[in-house]
Amino acid sequence: MRATVLHTSYDVRLEDVPDPKLDGPGDAIVKVVASCICGSDLWPYRGEPPVKAPRRIGHEFVGIVQEIGSEVRTVKPGDFVIAPFVVSDGTCPHCLAGFQTACVNRVGYGTDRADGGQGEYVKLPYADGTLVATPEVPDDSLVPSLLTLSDVMGTGWHAARSARVKPGDTVVVVGDGAVGLCGVLAAARMGAERVVSMSRHEPRQKLAKEFGATDIISERGDAGRDAVLELTDGVGADAVLECVGTGQSMTTAFDVARAGATVGFVGVPHGVEVPIGTMFGRNVGLAGGASPCRAYLPALMADVLAGEIDPGKVFDSVLPLADVAEGYRAMHERRAIKVMLRP
Amino acid sequence: MRATVLHTSYDVRLEDVPDPKLDGPGDAIVKVVASCICGSDLWPYRGEPPVKAPRRIGHEFVGIVQEIGSEVRTVKPGDFVIAPFVVSDGTCPHCLAGFQTACVNRVGYGTDRADGGQGEYVKLPYADGTLVATPEVPDDSLVPSLLTLSDVMGTGWHAARSARVKPGDTVVVVGDGAVGLCGVLAAARMGAERVVSMSRHEPRQKLAKEFGATDIISERGDAGRDAVLELTDGVGADAVLECVGTGQSMTTAFDVARAGATVGFVGVPHGVEVPIGTMFGRNVGLAGGASPCRAYLPALMADVLAGEIDPGKVFDSVLPLADVAEGYRAMHERRAIKVMLRP
Repeated sequence: MRATVLHTSYDVRLEDVPDPKLDGPGDAIVKVVASCICGSDLWPYRGEPPVKAPRRIGHEFVGIVQEIGSEVRTVKPGDFVIAPFVVSDGTCPHCLAGFQTACVNRVGYGTDRADGGQGEYVKLPYADGTLVATPEVPDDSLVPSLLTLSDVMGTGWHAARSARVKPGDTVVVVGDGAVGLCGVLAAARMGAERVVSMSRHEPRQKLAKEFGATDIISERGDAGRDAVLELTDGVGADAVLECVGTGQSMTTAFDVARAGATVGFVGVPHGVEVPIGTMFGRNVGLAGGASPCRAYLPALMADVLAGEIDPGKVFDSVLPLADVAEGYRAMHERRAIKVMLRP
Repeated sequence: MRATVLHTSYDVRLEDVPDPKLDGPGDAIVKVVASCICGSDLWPYRGEPPVKAPRRIGHEFVGIVQEIGSEVRTVKPGDFVIAPFVVSDGTCPHCLAGFQTACVNRVGYGTDRADGGQGEYVKLPYADGTLVATPEVPDDSLVPSLLTLSDVMGTGWHAARSARVKPGDTVVVVGDGAVGLCGVLAAARMGAERVVSMSRHEPRQKLAKEFGATDIISERGDAGRDAVLELTDGVGADAVLECVGTGQSMTTAFDVARAGATVGFVGVPHGVEVPIGTMFGRNVGLAGGASPCRAYLPALMADVLAGEIDPGKVFDSVLPLADVAEGYRAMHERRAIKVMLRP
């Protein structure tokens, strides 16, 4: 089969690799219907950290189950399944508590135990603990939105949930990538009265509004903070979603939070120093992390199938898998919000 | 009148100072019935930060209202009142949201606007927003427990509330000072099934058990973490109360938290680096800060008056105000958990 391999910084290729085979009784092999490129894939693509050896990549995909091991019970060949971005056993204490990204048997994609998602097929272990099947094979028009449940929509939801968004809240979303935009959608769906998207890219501003943003702030840094404070009579936001992961975005997130608010963070932290003094003085909490998308999948899938949410709009580019290198370039250069790949 | 003045490191004295006078229509003058020394008073006492000029000190007291300004409505001369450790106006958005320590008109004790608490009288502004009166002047036996509502019991409660303790939880309390002990009491009162006190001082262990601790762990650092993990089948605690404020205590707090748990922190941070990578990977949140004791006062006061809680047991030393210097020494040398001062 063909699958994406990251060779070194800025060198990603679709290559022939061995066909997947079942290794254990809990395994499944999924024929990928659609996959995509994640903002977090761009870190190794840019050499942060440096790529030491060629590696398979990709952790967001949907597809049709081809084969299952003898002990798999919840999915069967022919099922359309959504794969959260981490493989989890579904039975450990952390999985049972709804924090599958901390599974004691957690497996990453693109390793020797699970194939990378940006390929034609993916073999993975713990199929029962990981995959979620739709009730029937969905219409192709629903594929983009279902694909977002692998990561970006589940992650935006996690940001909002971690920030404890509640009906009537004023919510600020820092970051206008696919996750930030899904965070806007999540906050609106949770009943926030005012959703402020901090975005300076016009197409993203437009999508933020479609997703429920009531206000757009294009300034950054101190000017961005001042704009939020002006919007909120100097008080700040009831909840803040930090969807970038840099030091600047985290600083802004704390700066715009009102006393007693929580910053929900889901951007992989890079160079972030947590302002513990600010947190203490103003009782601003910090919660979040790697989203347990598996926990949110059943409810969000129901919302997508019912037409309640349409997070698939974050895909502004669809490419054949063969053009994966162009997909990475487009996201790296911010020409695309998010690229979907179809084998 | 006489009041306590911190001159420089390790030099604290009871001195004659000018009698207080009402300055504004919202002021009150309280005759102190009992005050106490706080763990946070020990930081400047030890010269962290260095004392630049002699300053009045103390922020926990109860007393009888002597005089009020013309606009004070909720307390009157003769009332027994409890003073939270921060003066707050009670009307700003942060006060109304229950985060009075972030009041936009916040005033500290021992400043030119409010006298220090370790004195014979205290004048303060915003009496209506700050003081809470008991229904009647309480029996003297209740004074210690009511005095803890100024700070340590309200702060222990805030640690537990910030950590989102819920019935049935396994809770770890890091720190066996008065606040940590009150945190044990708070967690037990909130219905925690297992309350683990990390304490290596025998008298404090004993009090922790009286307050509801089910387990005591005397080890620190990695050994302490391992002991908690052994107690919890390797899973960790559902909620962690960090009641010290040092780098080591914060590290331990995160180390013993299970995935998805929250560390509630109330120790003033000194040299703390927040382990953002751990937080992200295991979804361990951090919340807390300067406790809005004013918000908790009515309910905790009712609990004390009803005999439901007896946090006053943290006072293992009662000294006349004239011996304030000995009180500081006793707490600094850890000969006393907490010292009450009676004028």
